[in-house]
Amino acid sequence: MLIIGERINSTNPRIREMVRSRNSSSILKEVRDQLEAGANFIDVNCAVTSGDEIQDMDWIVSVIQSGIPDVNICIDSPNHLAIERAIAVHKGNGVLMINSITAEDRRIRDILPLAKAHNTKLVALTMGEDGMPCTAEERLKIARIIFDRVRSEGFDTRNLYFDALIRPISTEPAQGAEFLRSIPMIKTLGDVKMVCGLSNISFGLPDRSLINSVFLSMAMHAGLDAAILDPTDKRIFSSIKTSEALLGRDDYCADYIGAFRAGRLS
Amino acid sequence: MLIIGERINSTNPRIREMVRSRNSSSILKEVRDQLEAGANFIDVNCAVTSGDEIQDMDWIVSVIQSGIPDVNICIDSPNHLAIERAIAVHKGNGVLMINSITAEDRRIRDILPLAKAHNTKLVALTMGEDGMPCTAEERLKIARIIFDRVRSEGFDTRNLYFDALIRPISTEPAQGAEFLRSIPMIKTLGDVKMVCGLSNISFGLPDRSLINSVFLSMAMHAGLDAAILDPTDKRIFSSIKTSEALLGRDDYCADYIGAFRAGRLS
Repeated sequence: MLIIGERINSTNPRIREMVRSRNSSSILKEVRDQLEAGANFIDVNCAVTSGDEIQDMDWIVSVIQSGIPDVNICIDSPNHLAIERAIAVHKGNGVLMINSITAEDRRIRDILPLAKAHNTKLVALTMGEDGMPCTAEERLKIARIIFDRVRSEGFDTRNLYFDALIRPISTEPAQGAEFLRSIPMIKTLGDVKMVCGLSNISFGLPDRSLINSVFLSMAMHAGLDAAILDPTDKRIFSSIKTSEALLGRDDYCADYIGAFRAGRLS
Repeated sequence: MLIIGERINSTNPRIREMVRSRNSSSILKEVRDQLEAGANFIDVNCAVTSGDEIQDMDWIVSVIQSGIPDVNICIDSPNHLAIERAIAVHKGNGVLMINSITAEDRRIRDILPLAKAHNTKLVALTMGEDGMPCTAEERLKIARIIFDRVRSEGFDTRNLYFDALIRPISTEPAQGAEFLRSIPMIKTLGDVKMVCGLSNISFGLPDRSLINSVFLSMAMHAGLDAAILDPTDKRIFSSIKTSEALLGRDDYCADYIGAFRAGRLS
């Protein structure tokens, strides 16, 4: 499974302060910690920082590039100008992912051309002009609109990652099951991938890491291909390694046993 | 989910010694510990004890009955004479489950009449005359043979629990996925239930409790209705409570939050 490290996110006050004070060594440490823990991509979100997202995005991507040229970066912003700047600053060999478009016409018009021109991977939230879906069927309906649109505009849908929007079970008990049900349904559209922002599931509940790790196993069983999560969380990491072995993707459990011997399982 | 406590099993030397020495207070403590941890049934297996399974089964069931009259008991034996004795000794109000028949003709002829006559629940292993199945399709094929046979003989298939036979991923990496795939397939036969002996999945691997708990979550997502497991294992218990909440069976996560507050989650 593709692991997208979530830690560089300006909704976290600690990260916000690093960005505000231009503390490049701390930002690089966050990147390195996540890569060492197994992250394949580093998500960069600075929507809530100084008020100038474009300048902040420029700075973070430049800092990451200068320290670790080959890292894969997931540009996490609804703002096409911030995305454009991140792409312009990006010089390394790492792969880019844009997070995200929705079914909203303006957002597709602004962002899809960037993804096409720079051959990036692209996250699409199953969110329409009318807001968030409730059922798996509603998620599929929105995903189909997006799929048809981006395909008709010549985007390679193998690079499309649908995020079917996890909603907290604390307030909506059926939302876990609806999300899981939507994964195989959306994958019937074509050779697309499924991604999620994992931690939303446990919002408002105690021991969030337990809930996140159990839900991740279920979602991997349902067909999840990628997740935005904290790979330095030992329980999450254990869930990934164990699930890969259980789903037959770790021959003779070699990775699992290696992680156990390294003391990385919890 | 129906929890069948697995601890009274004579393959465990500690239990074997309790049976050999007729240590009723220790047996009753095993039962009470499992019931307090949430077991709905107590599995009783004494195939490997003194050599006289029938006498041992008589003694264990009598001891359990005398201490806790209303407990539900799962009689775990391939021997119809031991099963018959357990049923004869059983006097309480508890429900009985027989574990197990297979597709083997002799075993069905010996055991099915007991299940019918005493209106018990019945576990059916998807194992045929030719041994253990490998693929989900083979499991379904055997399950269909059993389903058609027990239905034609007038057994209420709502009381039928198929055990699709978990095999260790340590030696056969694809067996986890095949087992999971078989669950919804077998449930298409009718209003039957799915059960498993959970711990087989992790045989030969380190940190078995981690593997068992993650696999249980996946199996519950796939439609598992019951499992033979150790409910006193905190990680297994956490997996059950968390999975129930995530699958929308714990309104507003009340049970989950209660278990957290009671310090029962791990």
